[in-house]
Amino acid sequence: MTRDDRGVTPQGEDFSAWYNELVTKAQLVDRGPAKGTMVIRPYGYRLWELLQSELDRRIKDTGHDNAYFPLLIPESYLSREAEHVEGFSPELAVVTHAGGKELEEPLIVRPTSETVVGEMMAKWISSHRDLPLLLNQWANVVRWELRPRMFLRTTEFLWQEGHTAHADEADAMRETMLALDMYTEVARDIAAIPVVPGEKTPGERFAGAKGTFTIEGMMRDGKALQAGTSHYMGTNFAKAFDIRYTSAAGRLELCHTTSWGMSTRMIGGVIMTHGDDKGLVLPPRLAPYQVVIVPIGRGEQGARTSEAARELAGRLRSAGVRAHVDDRDQLSPGFRFNDWELRGVPIRLELGPRELETGSALMARRLGEEGKQAITLADAPRLLPGILDDFQDFLLRRATEFRDAHTTVTDSWDAFATAVASGWALASHCGDPACEADIKAKTAATPRCVPLDGPPATSTCVHCDGGAAYGKRVIFGRAY
Amino acid sequence: MTRDDRGVTPQGEDFSAWYNELVTKAQLVDRGPAKGTMVIRPYGYRLWELLQSELDRRIKDTGHDNAYFPLLIPESYLSREAEHVEGFSPELAVVTHAGGKELEEPLIVRPTSETVVGEMMAKWISSHRDLPLLLNQWANVVRWELRPRMFLRTTEFLWQEGHTAHADEADAMRETMLALDMYTEVARDIAAIPVVPGEKTPGERFAGAKGTFTIEGMMRDGKALQAGTSHYMGTNFAKAFDIRYTSAAGRLELCHTTSWGMSTRMIGGVIMTHGDDKGLVLPPRLAPYQVVIVPIGRGEQGARTSEAARELAGRLRSAGVRAHVDDRDQLSPGFRFNDWELRGVPIRLELGPRELETGSALMARRLGEEGKQAITLADAPRLLPGILDDFQDFLLRRATEFRDAHTTVTDSWDAFATAVASGWALASHCGDPACEADIKAKTAATPRCVPLDGPPATSTCVHCDGGAAYGKRVIFGRAY
Repeated sequence: MTRDDRGVTPQGEDFSAWYNELVTKAQLVDRGPAKGTMVIRPYGYRLWELLQSELDRRIKDTGHDNAYFPLLIPESYLSREAEHVEGFSPELAVVTHAGGKELEEPLIVRPTSETVVGEMMAKWISSHRDLPLLLNQWANVVRWELRPRMFLRTTEFLWQEGHTAHADEADAMRETMLALDMYTEVARDIAAIPVVPGEKTPGERFAGAKGTFTIEGMMRDGKALQAGTSHYMGTNFAKAFDIRYTSAAGRLELCHTTSWGMSTRMIGGVIMTHGDDKGLVLPPRLAPYQVVIVPIGRGEQGARTSEAARELAGRLRSAGVRAHVDDRDQLSPGFRFNDWELRGVPIRLELGPRELETGSALMARRLGEEGKQAITLADAPRLLPGILDDFQDFLLRRATEFRDAHTTVTDSWDAFATAVASGWALASHCGDPACEADIKAKTAATPRCVPLDGPPATSTCVHCDGGAAYGKRVIFGRAY
Repeated sequence: MTRDDRGVTPQGEDFSAWYNELVTKAQLVDRGPAKGTMVIRPYGYRLWELLQSELDRRIKDTGHDNAYFPLLIPESYLSREAEHVEGFSPELAVVTHAGGKELEEPLIVRPTSETVVGEMMAKWISSHRDLPLLLNQWANVVRWELRPRMFLRTTEFLWQEGHTAHADEADAMRETMLALDMYTEVARDIAAIPVVPGEKTPGERFAGAKGTFTIEGMMRDGKALQAGTSHYMGTNFAKAFDIRYTSAAGRLELCHTTSWGMSTRMIGGVIMTHGDDKGLVLPPRLAPYQVVIVPIGRGEQGARTSEAARELAGRLRSAGVRAHVDDRDQLSPGFRFNDWELRGVPIRLELGPRELETGSALMARRLGEEGKQAITLADAPRLLPGILDDFQDFLLRRATEFRDAHTTVTDSWDAFATAVASGWALASHCGDPACEADIKAKTAATPRCVPLDGPPATSTCVHCDGGAAYGKRVIFGRAY
């Protein structure tokens, strides 16, 4: 591979091309053989594992248990909740033959697991003592996509789906918000994405939900990415699957259920929140390698710097830093520098014969914002954790400033239309789905969410001038 | 649920009924809605997670990277390796419709991933510098089963599948044996199953492999369980998928590949290696709860013992012990004791008002081999890790003794037939598949493996008296 093969189209020229080229060239993914599927390569999968472990820990710490439900679901299950089947029907993959025979009833490859979980909850719950039932599963799901994009919309993706059952609405709503809080925290503190938590308007709700909550992040092209959702189902699924409990007073009551999911889509969010024309920019807390050490020199000099690099990497690992030595001496140092910039490694340490003599290395941050600086090899394990934390904070701050600079609070339709061409508009809206559809037809923007912490607003609908719903402004933007 | 509901059929009466009742009553699994599928409940899934983390760490420590390959594989891929498609065809589940349309080419729900991994390896490997390529994935696979049994044979199961590519046979064989070593170690040191590592006879090889290695454990009914396999594929898949590299000498060469897998079947192995008529017996290293504390007493006394139990659980957790407090005061202490025996918790601590007064608890080991003993609350966190280690060692020793007591070294056909009715026979065999089939028809026993460390043997075939193959004795037994 020559250096030219590794370059990517600049974001400003074609953001979409930048993204598509980058995910492949940075070796995050490859196209799978079946339409719209992806192969997640080790570098991309490690990102997912790191995200997963952060989220899994929070899920367990808040009292949820992991479980596993079957991939294949009888077709009839999907139909039991009317809105649910309507929402998912166009996207289903169907197994009609198995074991050499045609099946009596086709099986759906799960697009989500509400139905099969509902069936089991009905079996497991009998008394109020069984509540709340707090479950989660890590799984693959399949939704047939007409216009697949790696990580963002793939025919198969990986996710976790939480499914919980509660005695009443208040407890189920507490759970719905607790899941949303976890997502907000993981997005902000781990992925350095300053997402806005909020409620979806009725037209954007999950199929079968009474309320859908979301975290929305702004990508560097100004578009929104829905990065996690949490749904309050009311008693819809409890009615469809007969999930009931006997209350302390001895009455048979319907459970209130929730579900919530975060997926490999988040990796797309990380790429598009932080990446630049040189490639990925990975937040240290998700970076497979936080520090890459590039030893420089040929022959005996190369052997000496390589040995010093390995020794340093060992000490960094002992200090809890994910360090990697790139001693591919068939490649020039410059090529290797570019390669790790493309792959988004937060900190690069260059270790040449001259540096080795002075007991130091040259340190370059991925964004190059402070040029290269010398760091002594002895001090590196002590200093780097802090330097990585600073870089993590810097990325969150930069993304927050970017988001705020591209968000326009407005009551004017013209300003709204201009704003959503390159960012978000915060505007009042009448809440009418037909008006939402009109806005989408004219600007490609949709209501992303009603921010939870939005201040009260009384202005009329930015599009139709009708009375405003929600009592506060809605975020509008084009979206992935 | 009354106490009678919780009892299980004794092993001696009907081992199969014992197993089927136990997996459900101990809340490890439940039957899924589609034929042969299982729902893995939190208690069962936690076992899997603990096994997974032990194996995953070893996989990573030996230089393998996790990745993820698509669930759905074009039907034509399977056919590229002739033996492979022949082996798997009867078990395939086929997606024929997706997104509301009939697909041009049906998609197979992966029964294993050699083919799609092979396709990608061909793309990723070009030079000897790309080798070895050491990949692993954690995934679900689907194989249509006519006679499903929870964990042992289910239509869908969870596993890891390692896939590696090497420059030559020697390196690929090293890898094949390294994977087998990992499995042997995890089975022995974590699951306390004294498995025998060995090679499968040609008739029992994986579809498409040149050599299949296995670890075989003996269950408490004397049958064998294949608990993990490692395959050397030679260049079969490399030819089928064109996985080639340019050697240092500049020649284009075929890669040698391997694959190896361990699955949720291992949980079935744990149940059948250690369980007894009271229920599960879990090795501490896999037990979701290593210690359960049962506070006893009603009203104010109950409140005091519950508080002391929670305080003790906290100190045990700080000492690295997975502790759980069962304060379901609507259930009698006896019911709770039985419940945790059924669920196989290694150590139970009973904490009543009398014990609390003396600052101690009554400790009962799951096998009750030393009766109940007092343990002071202050010392418990210091002592329990060692007690758990002893229990783990005891289970391995007990299982090893059981295996050895039920293994007969023999050259006589009569003794062979008697031995495999209740255990294993170690006998010489001619290696002829027709003779293997004859033995199976007469005794239901199959060759489980040629043990790696078996001493040389020169006796003739135990069945046909023909010249012996393999140069050592073969383990024969009935198998799951």
